[in-house]
Amino acid sequence: MQGLDQLKYDADGLIPAIVQDADTGEVLMMAYMNKTSLAESIRTGRTHFWSRSRRKYWMKGESSGHVQEIREILVDCDADTLLIRAKQHGAACHEGYKTCFFRAYDAAEGQWQTQGTRLFDPQQVYGSK
Amino acid sequence: MQGLDQLKYDADGLIPAIVQDADTGEVLMMAYMNKTSLAESIRTGRTHFWSRSRRKYWMKGESSGHVQEIREILVDCDADTLLIRAKQHGAACHEGYKTCFFRAYDAAEGQWQTQGTRLFDPQQVYGSK
Repeated sequence: MQGLDQLKYDADGLIPAIVQDADTGEVLMMAYMNKTSLAESIRTGRTHFWSRSRRKYWMKGESSGHVQEIREILVDCDADTLLIRAKQHGAACHEGYKTCFFRAYDAAEGQWQTQGTRLFDPQQVYGSK
Repeated sequence: MQGLDQLKYDADGLIPAIVQDADTGEVLMMAYMNKTSLAESIRTGRTHFWSRSRRKYWMKGESSGHVQEIREILVDCDADTLLIRAKQHGAACHEGYKTCFFRAYDAAEGQWQTQGTRLFDPQQVYGSK
């Protein structure tokens, strides 16, 4: 497998990118990149994504300062998913948790249970947005 | 956030599920679940997915014996991505590597470089499939 042109983007030109904390191994979030945001991520060393809901480019941390410094970019065997190992400044989740995956399924209760503690108050970081 | 009915599936009824090794923290693979395969995963304690290319259900390890015993199921803040922590028997990747993410991008060369070593020979495990 050769360079970046081997990646398989979906019908919308997107590829899912899992972000993992390079130091702790925690899975922090998953978001979508396209060709342009991947190129920008490589150029700057910081994660850039395409927001499907807002239909715009965004850099992780652009509002909060909680940027992700890219240490390594990996691709899976099918070349249709990226794994990005990064140093996370602050917290990955806009709800104030270190990782976006802060709810675990409790099969006995049939409910999602919050685990982990908030590192910041979203209202203080993002204001009224 | 209450139970499983809070999950947001895409237009095809699918939700991406990242699988992480519960012991080592390695991200092993990403595949897609639908409501039925998630229910089957919870019921059996082993990961079941929906194959978009083959249009069928599959249990990880059904051919190879390399099953994934589920330890924990987490959901992200948007409720549209799952993270499954599992004990991986054998190797996750059908190409014989522990993880499907065995190629890292070498920006200097502009190429994907294989890292990690094969744990098994795919031909021996999967035969001529």
